[in-house]
Amino acid sequence: MTAFTDTDLTCNDFLGGRLRLWQPRDGYRAGVDPVLLAAAVPASPGQSVLELGCGAGAAVLCLGTRVPDLRLTGVELQPAYADLARRNARENGIALSVHAADLAHLPSELRQLQFDHVIANPPYYRAGAHSAAADAGRRVALGEQTPLAAWIETAARRLAPRGYLHVIQRADRLPDLMAACTDRLGSLEILPLAPRVGRAAELVILRARKSGRAAFRLHAPLILHQGDRHERDEDSYAPAVSDVLRHGRPLRWPGQP
Amino acid sequence: MTAFTDTDLTCNDFLGGRLRLWQPRDGYRAGVDPVLLAAAVPASPGQSVLELGCGAGAAVLCLGTRVPDLRLTGVELQPAYADLARRNARENGIALSVHAADLAHLPSELRQLQFDHVIANPPYYRAGAHSAAADAGRRVALGEQTPLAAWIETAARRLAPRGYLHVIQRADRLPDLMAACTDRLGSLEILPLAPRVGRAAELVILRARKSGRAAFRLHAPLILHQGDRHERDEDSYAPAVSDVLRHGRPLRWPGQP
Repeated sequence: MTAFTDTDLTCNDFLGGRLRLWQPRDGYRAGVDPVLLAAAVPASPGQSVLELGCGAGAAVLCLGTRVPDLRLTGVELQPAYADLARRNARENGIALSVHAADLAHLPSELRQLQFDHVIANPPYYRAGAHSAAADAGRRVALGEQTPLAAWIETAARRLAPRGYLHVIQRADRLPDLMAACTDRLGSLEILPLAPRVGRAAELVILRARKSGRAAFRLHAPLILHQGDRHERDEDSYAPAVSDVLRHGRPLRWPGQP
Repeated sequence: MTAFTDTDLTCNDFLGGRLRLWQPRDGYRAGVDPVLLAAAVPASPGQSVLELGCGAGAAVLCLGTRVPDLRLTGVELQPAYADLARRNARENGIALSVHAADLAHLPSELRQLQFDHVIANPPYYRAGAHSAAADAGRRVALGEQTPLAAWIETAARRLAPRGYLHVIQRADRLPDLMAACTDRLGSLEILPLAPRVGRAAELVILRARKSGRAAFRLHAPLILHQGDRHERDEDSYAPAVSDVLRHGRPLRWPGQP
């Protein structure tokens, strides 16, 4: 895949229309996950943020939409997606520096920088663990080329002292995710994301801090949908989730004021 | 500490009086944790169960009270507690074989056995991480002499193929607990135990299987208390918890029929 042409793309509203993103019609398309990830990050104006594997830029641009004056950087393995992230940043008037690079081998200019926040929404499937997607770009975006430990390793190296890592990932990858943080990051917190009350978590947001020393915390789950049954997603998001998805609000992290 | 005399002991009701246990007045005293642990174990009549660090026998004897015809074995480092477990088993008419031994160095007769279930309620505090308890036996029972990894290692060695491990532990020890299971046990499931709706888990029950290959599962928390505030514990247990503590019922494990 070299570059997308406009006929390959659709333009979609995020955060109730505050952000509009071009996405490949048949490739990897952002759902609610990067939006929730961005909403969990306690970034303040003036801080620096690095997104590993930024794709078309959904998470980092959601964060840039909510919090002004951030210094935003994205790394994306696939040049066509990196181009798309640049275009999305430009068209939404958000300053974003995008590097087309392998996160396991960052260019030296990035290796000289440290960030207050690193965020990532790594692919959800192990390489070979799922049927191949027909679209090559989608396959790379969904499938794990780079082990989860490499994402955490790179994040830990690029974080400033006391900097925050936030990762959204499938709940069943939690053992790998937590193991990768051992000896690299501290103050781990897990926010389970459950589809309904009483259901197992399908996703988790992991928060960790560079040089953090606080005890591990397993928070009460964030319940995504109201009610017991799946109706139309549009109608059924819990108010706190709807506030994030449609009104661009921050996600209220448990135990935080 | 050599042995307890009767004046050192109190006799307490468990499971609504179905089980009565002698416990040291000033030493380690079982709370609801071993009762919940025992209630989580899907043991069937005829199966074998090993409790590591059985203390006065609360967990293994709760299990023996609920499920008939189990072959029950306990290992306890402190001989005085091992004696107490034997007495408690005898007085409650439950067959229990207790070995006074270090779980990291089991006697050869135990090393030749495999068990359908291993259960453990390891000490909640790292050695040196808390102020010393005045009572020496309580100090050993509460403080970690043996690293959590050694508990999991011994459990994994003693489990029969497809056998279950259940461990109850403080939620903040989850990273150590999960790391210890890596490459030793599979099909990990975590049941968070939260004091109230919306509160972080304070305890977790980990379930794992020897040679298990199922995906990791993070279940919805079991909420221990009803209501928002702490009133009298007696009055406020959630019905499913009260069924376990006062009526000796099994704990309904999520996703199980």
